[in-house]
Amino acid sequence: MPRPQRQVLVCTNTRPPGNPKGSCGEKGSDALADAIKSLVKSRGLADRVMVQKTSCLKHCSHGITVAVQPDNVWYQRVRPEDLDEICRRHLEEGQPIERLFMPDIPWE
Amino acid sequence: MPRPQRQVLVCTNTRPPGNPKGSCGEKGSDALADAIKSLVKSRGLADRVMVQKTSCLKHCSHGITVAVQPDNVWYQRVRPEDLDEICRRHLEEGQPIERLFMPDIPWE
Repeated sequence: MPRPQRQVLVCTNTRPPGNPKGSCGEKGSDALADAIKSLVKSRGLADRVMVQKTSCLKHCSHGITVAVQPDNVWYQRVRPEDLDEICRRHLEEGQPIERLFMPDIPWE
Repeated sequence: MPRPQRQVLVCTNTRPPGNPKGSCGEKGSDALADAIKSLVKSRGLADRVMVQKTSCLKHCSHGITVAVQPDNVWYQRVRPEDLDEICRRHLEEGQPIERLFMPDIPWE
């Protein structure tokens, strides 16, 4: 089976402006996903790490939400300035980044 | 961290008709993802199983492609008539379904 070593999932669900939940899309997740793809490629990880945009990852108010599988690690409020660390520490060295962990809250 | 027990990823990438790779979208993956969501809900799994639609999962010619994380199990050519078995055996009983395994081919 052609499993990726890791798969990065970026929520790109967009709700209309003013929606009380907010959404990852309106926080710029589409561009963030593209930036992760570029980093993965430039750091030579593209043969073992996949990056996908997804429908709602159910943590709208804590977005931008990013999940890394098969580690089942979920990150909240991911910003462009976090991406180098995610690539270097988590995707390359296998060390999840605790300061970005999604809190233990119900799915939205 | 609010991890799902399992996360079902359904490729809903669509290429124009006639594209030599084909695509999961033109094989009906959007409706397939909706059907999985309905099954997950009706079988009482919605509090522990997430279902997301994703951008290209890189196995276009073997679609509809479905990945189940964190098992890192990848299925090929998934049809509506496979969904009951996927829900019952894999999502509920934790037993991946070998006859649907993606062959060991490079990503497209």
